Amino acid sequence: MYKTVKISELRDLTIRILTSAGETEENAVLVFENLLEDEYMGKSSHGFYRIPAIARYSKNRRQRTDVKIDINDNIISVDGQENLSFVAVRKACDSVAALGKTKNIIIAGVHNYVGETTGALGYYTRYLARNGLIGIMFCRASASVVPYGSMEPHIGTNPISFAVPAEESPFVCDVSTAGISYGKLAILAKSGEQAPENVILDKDGYPTTDPLDMIERGGVQLPLAGHKGYSLGLASEILAGLFVGAQSGNGKAIPDGTDGTLIIAFKPDLFISAETFARNMNAYMEELRDAKPAPGSKGVRIPGQYDNAEYEAKKASGEITLLTEVYNDMLACL
Amino acid sequence: MYKTVKISELRDLTIRILTSAGETEENAVLVFENLLEDEYMGKSSHGFYRIPAIARYSKNRRQRTDVKIDINDNIISVDGQENLSFVAVRKACDSVAALGKTKNIIIAGVHNYVGETTGALGYYTRYLARNGLIGIMFCRASASVVPYGSMEPHIGTNPISFAVPAEESPFVCDVSTAGISYGKLAILAKSGEQAPENVILDKDGYPTTDPLDMIERGGVQLPLAGHKGYSLGLASEILAGLFVGAQSGNGKAIPDGTDGTLIIAFKPDLFISAETFARNMNAYMEELRDAKPAPGSKGVRIPGQYDNAEYEAKKASGEITLLTEVYNDMLACL
Repeated sequence: MYKTVKISELRDLTIRILTSAGETEENAVLVFENLLEDEYMGKSSHGFYRIPAIARYSKNRRQRTDVKIDINDNIISVDGQENLSFVAVRKACDSVAALGKTKNIIIAGVHNYVGETTGALGYYTRYLARNGLIGIMFCRASASVVPYGSMEPHIGTNPISFAVPAEESPFVCDVSTAGISYGKLAILAKSGEQAPENVILDKDGYPTTDPLDMIERGGVQLPLAGHKGYSLGLASEILAGLFVGAQSGNGKAIPDGTDGTLIIAFKPDLFISAETFARNMNAYMEELRDAKPAPGSKGVRIPGQYDNAEYEAKKASGEITLLTEVYNDMLACL
Repeated sequence: MYKTVKISELRDLTIRILTSAGETEENAVLVFENLLEDEYMGKSSHGFYRIPAIARYSKNRRQRTDVKIDINDNIISVDGQENLSFVAVRKACDSVAALGKTKNIIIAGVHNYVGETTGALGYYTRYLARNGLIGIMFCRASASVVPYGSMEPHIGTNPISFAVPAEESPFVCDVSTAGISYGKLAILAKSGEQAPENVILDKDGYPTTDPLDMIERGGVQLPLAGHKGYSLGLASEILAGLFVGAQSGNGKAIPDGTDGTLIIAFKPDLFISAETFARNMNAYMEELRDAKPAPGSKGVRIPGQYDNAEYEAKKASGEITLLTEVYNDMLACL
């Protein structure tokens, strides 16, 4: 069952839940904006259903200080001070966007934040692209994926994201380096469906397609496309983990670490003029959209791009449709 | 049949072939070093068998000027001036490594070079890592891969590479964003074997596993793992293509462009001390190597890492083993 909710009401509700959990109103709004954007983008897996977990993380914070941001030339070092991931990473992006007005390339490392996810990584790179920057981001999360050849998790589902400003809306690549997301496995398990092949192992390290073998019986996730996804996931684990002062792996080798995020951002006109870049980007996006569809395909989509008119209409409606269960779970947080 | 050749002889032979094709001795040596390293790394697909094609590209150069390198703060803009890819990209890396002594983060764009490949991208990131830098590289090659949903090629096989300095030898991720490399398809076709599923389409856009459907009958390559590889390949196509002033796509939207490469490099101690970084990197690599193997697996390998003793022994032997055919093809270039 679905329920249509006024955006203003959802905003107030989110603020009430998170401020009563100890967040400032400013931080609660940052979380709200993130979840709302993910809902608009059709990524309800990163939307308001996460509010109860976010509120829990917020209540459990030991520190209540603001995110600490140190800027040294074009390096931004962000100590999350146990703030919510959504808050720490967004504030890091705000700082990157501001510095992007005067620096050609910026690198920002974020660590010491809490939460079961940073939200969709594409939310942040899209935000950078809307601020006129090309954004590259890596994120390490707690270990649930095996290194290729092993049956023990030592790598997170570690997404990699790229966004590039474009005329219609930014190109956004946001790819998990795991074969399948935990969220999708959970949905398959609930509906009694099988998982695809080569995405999970059971607790004894044998291939399985039963999602419950992973979720309830101690199995593990496999990397995307075997050794290639392993290699990419490992790059993300190192860059967004130990490099930024966070953790990498399962905590044995590097104890007391946290999740982490690395941001690299730069202007689109470092090598060619802004006009040529915009024109060529536009021409290439058109070339892709016009590519001949394969039999049975609806044609080519540009990753992350959306219909601006539709997006603005959604916003202008002032309403959003959520699963009734999601809405009720939010009410239950009060 | 195989032939063991003295390294010094192979070096002289390479120099004679390439200087008679019009290269300077300095540039011929850069090509030699690249191919030799790939042979040492077991990547004969990027080794000396490419010499005849490289010599052809060299002979066909219209310009004979040196690579043009402009440095502006931490931005390196490299106009290859129609030099060989191996020369232009390596000289860009030399410039990055030199600038890395004084700058925290460097971005370098390379365009206007020639060749059917830049060689293994991991060669260059490993080179940066041996110079103490974390390296990220993207490369766009001519279109042979379809956008997800299409049957027309608009994207190259576009590798993405990361390398990170480590105690034993660098971690090197070097991943093509195509489902399978053209070289592997060619080998399968020669040996009469089938390709895996989901890596090629025939000329009518239907899935096939016959490599000849792609190689001889106008088929196309699919991206790695469907929309995820498409998204990553597109990021590489944009960053290493139109962004650096090279081409993106099949040349219709952006005519007169060339292949291109983007390099981002930075010091490992931007957020934590060099000592902590080295210690944590080492600890994490150990954690991975010790990860429990899955049934039937030989255990976990770190991508790109090699046994230093074995590598040095190979070098010290002063010899290398090549396919006799590869050696004879080189002789025929003279």
